[in-house]
Amino acid sequence: MNNYIDQLSIDCVVFGYQSKTLKVLITKIINIDNCYALPGGFILQNEDIDIAARRILNERTSLDHIYLDQFKAFGKNNRRDQRFIQQVMENQIWNTNQSGIKIDLNWLDKRFVSLGYYALVDIENVVLRKSEIDESVDWVDLDKVPQLIFDHNEIISEALVELREKFDKKLIGFNLLPSIFTMRDLQELYEVVYDTPFARNNFQKKILDLNVLERLEKKYTGAANKAPYLYRFIK
Amino acid sequence: MNNYIDQLSIDCVVFGYQSKTLKVLITKIINIDNCYALPGGFILQNEDIDIAARRILNERTSLDHIYLDQFKAFGKNNRRDQRFIQQVMENQIWNTNQSGIKIDLNWLDKRFVSLGYYALVDIENVVLRKSEIDESVDWVDLDKVPQLIFDHNEIISEALVELREKFDKKLIGFNLLPSIFTMRDLQELYEVVYDTPFARNNFQKKILDLNVLERLEKKYTGAANKAPYLYRFIK
Repeated sequence: MNNYIDQLSIDCVVFGYQSKTLKVLITKIINIDNCYALPGGFILQNEDIDIAARRILNERTSLDHIYLDQFKAFGKNNRRDQRFIQQVMENQIWNTNQSGIKIDLNWLDKRFVSLGYYALVDIENVVLRKSEIDESVDWVDLDKVPQLIFDHNEIISEALVELREKFDKKLIGFNLLPSIFTMRDLQELYEVVYDTPFARNNFQKKILDLNVLERLEKKYTGAANKAPYLYRFIK
Repeated sequence: MNNYIDQLSIDCVVFGYQSKTLKVLITKIINIDNCYALPGGFILQNEDIDIAARRILNERTSLDHIYLDQFKAFGKNNRRDQRFIQQVMENQIWNTNQSGIKIDLNWLDKRFVSLGYYALVDIENVVLRKSEIDESVDWVDLDKVPQLIFDHNEIISEALVELREKFDKKLIGFNLLPSIFTMRDLQELYEVVYDTPFARNNFQKKILDLNVLERLEKKYTGAANKAPYLYRFIK
């Protein structure tokens, strides 16, 4: 495992948005019953950590360009999940990885510090793929995430705190929407992220005052007089 | 060096405030000309990363309780400073550390990912100490920081961005002040951190409305009628 940095991993909280619900990408680990985790991986010796995170996400989402933010390192000494490590050892599931590099199981049987990233994607653009250790990779509603290995549930909670702090200030929410959307789509997204309703007129004024939206034609709904305008985010 | 996690370091941006100036703690590395760095160190195998950061800071500041926030990992593949590493190798300066553990120089001659922490301290409480690799440890005005090794100047810049984002929201600024201060002291601190003047009445109203200050007696200045009130932060 000299190709990877020892004792250092990356775990990604990939947020998506669909049907007025915030979702996260969860992997089910192969050959172990009910064992779920965040999509993660390791850092090659000559690889920037941000590039490693993009590679790990590309392996699961097929996306090349992705909004990504490294927000915190998770490094409690006791974050390791001994039961999980034991099962991996017994099942010999991690003998190769995507790159065909042999994984030394003793290498895995150490304490790891994990760099937490969160990503925002338009679910419609994602083509889910499995890495060799994934039995499946699926979108899960944020409020229905099962018990995950290690401290991965805590990583999601912390990512959500960070998302809320940055969402408004950095206008990153547009990464969760299709490129063209209505004002109502946008408001619903904000309401879901902050888990609170906003007054329609206030919301619209506040957003339009930012001068980051281009107004396009009206959305075709069949009822022309009530049709809402479509908008596009000006990058 | 089996006692430390390989290829992972901690670098700390310690902010202090004195004479209306924001300062950071800089170490001068022993036996190398003009070689400056952030106070840093490594993580013991069984040590939480936050505890490692506290130990590293205690080694330089003698403080046990310190406001500390881990804000970003720095992990570009090319962040290593080859010239510095070469000089360390030639000068054989890092053969032991504070704990008396032998440092294998080959261990140091690798790529490191560094976890960036920032700390806020009341300068008056700090008793500066040197670790074995420090020729000196000094407070330097934020706008007079010299060229540092690796990406340490960038780590300071990023810490300052983070400090400004969190300063107001989390009321962390009080960590930079003595426990008792005047409203003017507090306003001056805010003006220095944000590098912008605030209107006195607005500032005072905004701060008092937060209900986090306890008003004490007036400050003794000799001119009783103009003496300002003293305040204390309610934790």
